[in-house]
Formats: sequence, C-alpha cells, structure tokens
Amino acid sequence: MSGLTPSANSDSGRTVISVDAMGGDRGPAAVVAGISLSAKKNPDIAFILHGPEAKLRRLVAKRRNLEGRVEYRDMPDVVSMDDKPTQVMRNGKDTSMWSAIDSVRNGEAAACVSCGNTGALMMLSVVRLRKLPGVNRPAIAVLWPSKSPQGFNIMLDVGADIRADEQDLLQYALMGASYARNGMELVRPRVGLLNVGTEEFKGRAELKAAHDLVAQNAENANFEFVGFVEGTDLPGNKADVIVTDGFTGNVAIKTGEGTASLIGSLLREAFKFSPLSRLAAVMAYTSLNRLNKRIDPRRVNGGVFLGLNGTVVKSHGSSDATGVSAAVKLAFKLGQSGFSERLAARVASAVSLPQDDATSASDENE
Amino acid sequence: MSGLTPSANSDSGRTVISVDAMGGDRGPAAVVAGISLSAKKNPDIAFILHGPEAKLRRLVAKRRNLEGRVEYRDMPDVVSMDDKPTQVMRNGKDTSMWSAIDSVRNGEAAACVSCGNTGALMMLSVVRLRKLPGVNRPAIAVLWPSKSPQGFNIMLDVGADIRADEQDLLQYALMGASYARNGMELVRPRVGLLNVGTEEFKGRAELKAAHDLVAQNAENANFEFVGFVEGTDLPGNKADVIVTDGFTGNVAIKTGEGTASLIGSLLREAFKFSPLSRLAAVMAYTSLNRLNKRIDPRRVNGGVFLGLNGTVVKSHGSSDATGVSAAVKLAFKLGQSGFSERLAARVASAVSLPQDDATSASDENE
Repeated sequence: MSGLTPSANSDSGRTVISVDAMGGDRGPAAVVAGISLSAKKNPDIAFILHGPEAKLRRLVAKRRNLEGRVEYRDMPDVVSMDDKPTQVMRNGKDTSMWSAIDSVRNGEAAACVSCGNTGALMMLSVVRLRKLPGVNRPAIAVLWPSKSPQGFNIMLDVGADIRADEQDLLQYALMGASYARNGMELVRPRVGLLNVGTEEFKGRAELKAAHDLVAQNAENANFEFVGFVEGTDLPGNKADVIVTDGFTGNVAIKTGEGTASLIGSLLREAFKFSPLSRLAAVMAYTSLNRLNKRIDPRRVNGGVFLGLNGTVVKSHGSSDATGVSAAVKLAFKLGQSGFSERLAARVASAVSLPQDDATSASDENE
Repeated sequence: MSGLTPSANSDSGRTVISVDAMGGDRGPAAVVAGISLSAKKNPDIAFILHGPEAKLRRLVAKRRNLEGRVEYRDMPDVVSMDDKPTQVMRNGKDTSMWSAIDSVRNGEAAACVSCGNTGALMMLSVVRLRKLPGVNRPAIAVLWPSKSPQGFNIMLDVGADIRADEQDLLQYALMGASYARNGMELVRPRVGLLNVGTEEFKGRAELKAAHDLVAQNAENANFEFVGFVEGTDLPGNKADVIVTDGFTGNVAIKTGEGTASLIGSLLREAFKFSPLSRLAAVMAYTSLNRLNKRIDPRRVNGGVFLGLNGTVVKSHGSSDATGVSAAVKLAFKLGQSGFSERLAARVASAVSLPQDDATSASDENE
C-alpha cells in the first residue's frame, strides 16, 4: 500500500479504476498518456497504477492533470506476452497484472484495465475474482464497428472458451444484453444468435436448443431476440448483441480485423499511385480521417470479461494513449453502473430449463 | 436435346461450359451478358445454356460474338432461392439447374456454372455427380482478396457441411491444395489450418489431430503446411489455402463480406461530406476504382464444389455480367485442366491414418 496520494482514493467521490501499467507492447508511457487523456475528459475518475513505482511516478509527474489522482502499487514483476497463464498463476503474485486485479477483488477499485497477455489476464481474473453465482463460463465481449445507430455491435464470446452449449449461449445472451444496457445505454438491445444461413444446414444442434432457450428468456430479461443472424450481420444493423461460441467469435473478429486492415493498406496504395491521386488524398484527408475514426479499433477498444465478481477490461496489446483511454472510459462506465452486480441478478433470474415457466420478476433496475 | 447449334459442340475443339441461365437474382439477361463477355475474351470456350429456350435465344441473338457458340437445353422450370433442396431433389427434374448439372454428368460439358440456390445446387450436385472415391464430405471453396502475391486466398469449407473431423479436414487440405494448383497455378501452395490464437485455448481436439495428419501428408501431396493460422490470415499472406469446417468458414467469409461492405459505405459517406471531399472523390476516382477492382467480390466470384465427379462453380446469386464471366473463367480453367480427375488421384493417395507410412508416390502430374 505504498505511494498513497491522499486525495486520490475513493474518499474523493471519484470512481477509481485499477490500471495495470505494464505488459502492453508500448510500455508504461503509453498507459500513463492514456490515463492522462481520460483524466482530462473526466473529472470524476481516479486511478490506482500498478507497476514499478519510481518509474511510474516519473511518467505521471510529466502530466499535470494527473496530480492528486493517482495511487501506486509498487510491483517489480511483469507478465509478458509469452508467459503461459498457468506459470503466471504459480509465480505471478508480484506482477502488476495480479495486483491490478486484486484492487478490484478487495474493493479498492470499481474496475480494472490491462493491455497485457489476454490468456493470463483471463485466468487470473477468473481465479482471483471468481465466477458470478450461476455463471458456467465467463466470456470475453468485444465491440465491433457496425451500421447500428450506436455505431458498433457487441459480440461474445471471442476467446474465453471454445465450446459452448445451449445453457452457455443463453448466459452469453443475458450477459451481452446486460452489457449493452450498462455500457452502451441501449434500453432494449436486440440480441442475435450467430449461425450459417443455408437452408439445408441450419446449424448445430446446440444452436437450435439455444434458439428456443434465448427466445423464452427475452421478455423476462428485457431484450429483443432477433433470432439467428449471419456473419454479415456482425457489422450490420440487425442485432446489437451477437452471441456465439468463443472459437467462432474469435475467428470472426479476426477475419473482420484482417479484412479491414487489407482494405486500409490497399486504400493507401491506391492513393499513392499517381501525383493526381496523391493530391486527391491530401484533399480527402478530413474525409478519410473521419472514416478512420469510425472504424479505428483503438476507439472501440476493450474486450470486457463478463461473468465475474468484478469488471475487467482487456485493452489491445498495442494500445496507444487513445486506445488505453477508450478502455478506461469503458471500465469507468461499467464500474460506475454497478454492472457486475446487475449482471449477477440477471443471470440468476434466467429461465434455465426449457420446461420451466418464467417465474422470476425482472423488477431490478437493470 | 433441342437447339443443337452444329458448330458449338465439343467437335469444335472448344471447352464446353454448362450454364444454368436461371435462378440468379438478375435473371437470364445478366447470365447471357456474362457468357458473352467470356466469349469475347476467350476463343476456346463454348456453352450449353439451360432454361426456357425461346427466351434464351432472343437474349443470345443480341450478342453477335455468341453466334455458333451456344447450344440450348429447353427447360421450363426454375429453382428459386426459397426452394428447399429436398423439394428440388423430388420435383426438380425439369429445372435448368438439374439439367445444367446433368450436362457435366453425361460428359457433354467440362464444368457447370449456376447463380442459383446454393443449398439446392450442392445437393443436386452431390446426388447427380456423386462423390469422388475416398471423399467423405464434399466442400465449397471460395476465393478471398488477400495480401498474397496472387491477390487472393482460397478458403474451404464455407458451408457445404457443418461438422468436420480430422479426416475431413485432411481431405479439405488436399482438395484445396489441388484447387490452388489447377485453378491458380500455384505450384506448391501454402496450406494453413484455421484456429484461435490464445495460448491457453489452443483449439479443439479434432484440430490438433488434423494438424498432425495434414503435416504428415504435406510432402507427399506437394504443398507446404504452415500450421495453424488465425482469422487475420484469411486476407493475409501466410497461407494460400485456409482449411476449416463449414460452419466456421461460412461465418468468417460473411463477417469479411460484411466488414468490407461497411467500410465501402462509410467511405462513400465520408466523400459526400463536404464540397471539397466531393471534389477529392472525383479526383481520386481512378484510385478508388483500382481499389474496388481489387476487392470486388464479383471478380473473385465463384464458390467451387470440391470432391465430386465433375466441377460445379457456384456464382453469387446477385452476379451481374462481370460476376458470371469470372465464374465461367474459373469453370473453364478447372474444366480444361481435368481438375476433378487429378483431385481424385490426390485424395486416393493420401495417408489417412496417422500410424501409416507415406507409401503412395506422387508422380501423377498434378
């Protein structure tokens, strides 16, 4: 508990976000620049920063707007991208990642943000925070640019687990809808179940079972079930929340990322082709910039771990200040809304067996 | 066998492509315009056109370059996009689709092209052409724009079937490599197995088994196995052939399509924003057009059904002349190379059991 800056703790009325300063590709400077950005925009936020304290203090000292808003937890060790999650479990007690999660565990912070190793972060989060009562499999939810009015859709799971039966998929639907309400202010989110479209091959058995189960819970859990959706609907305007197993979700999100990146580099090539096209590119700069902002993965940054006693936001490994700030914003929003408590109530009230009647009321203000 | 134009049959030395003129979203006019485009570019091609003959003759009469290169099969019925494959199986004998496949079955044509209902086309193809000896599950392979030198990658399966065990995945690898050699002239294609990347969740059991099996067959089957790849590699330059089950493949390809379409419409919006950006758009026209050509799905049009006694190319339902022509070009290339015979030999020579030794020689000139 070293480095306590008196005005930075929860007595200030600020929402405290626990930030793992280490483990990202760009090091602690990018993280500190990111929280500085957040602090500039949001007067109600404070931070606990985990990592080598002396180094972090030097970085923070350069940012005037962080004065009095940062506490430190001096942690000598770092989880690297190559560390195996099981190793981290065994030997990681002195890492900034472990400590960052524990600040949520012991109630010092409302949510945690890390740019580090996803597998290790997930495993540590599950072990240290534990699953919410009634949750079988925690999930990772991501935001994806889309044609929906809010500009992006939520997809889950994208890699926390590779198998999902119908009960898991129901829980993902409930958790995703809850996230959409608390993180994106969608009062009655549209939830779709990812499947293939061809008539004769209407997907897997667990998907048919999940379809019925999710449909049965929609009314009670206050979301609109739009039924099966296809890959094209992930960036579309048919559903706000797209539910799938972790394997399929991971492949889909990475195919989308790859495709966007391919188009980006082809676009740059195209504009370099001739002097005229280069001039056009200069003139189109604001337009292209506008497009860039809209699909910039840094701005929809932050996979959220759902189904745990506490909120953990995974920022992209290569996050710069903008990326870190976006993840912090999301963590703040979810932390402030008491998201994980609401989610717990939601999951507990679900109709988990198809033959059950919907008996539980949904009067908690979720 | 009505409507035989004397000079259009195989005696002319031309490669005959069987074309289903009906069932696409844009009707027979787009199909005739497409084969006319192909005929213009390729003197060695001739067609059998399936559909209502009088109507087709009127459309063909408008295209001088099709004179003497088209035979007709007068078929009154059409498979619509909503028809269930099983219905088509029962009552579809007089449809243009059935007839188009049968022209390959009875050796009149080297390959078949249809823009119609994918499920029905697949089922009819499997039943009428039958699976190649040794093939468990036929697959649909598609081309996807990529950073690879040839400009696109092959992915299979994308919807023919939803489950695939390790033996199926091995066959997909063999068929995909064979397709890359015969359809894209890649002497030694790079083959990757689609998986998720996170350390701790290294995919499904069948994927681990498939990894070993494919690795074991790479040398013998003359491809380079690059191991596991991720969704980002589908539009990337790590593998030319990406192997996965039909469910995952279908979701991936549609997510990619959706993402490309989202970026396209955002790009158009961005350029409409101000008078300056509109002017820039005009100046950038050639550049953007160049980009468009590169990622235009019409130009990489054509899912190919692999593993049957005969080549069937599925063109996009909304294909226009350019799209149909691209599919015909692919059918011509595969038909001419005796692709399905080579593929049969390749599958037959595979080492199908991990404990077997690689005994079969690979001296057929595939």
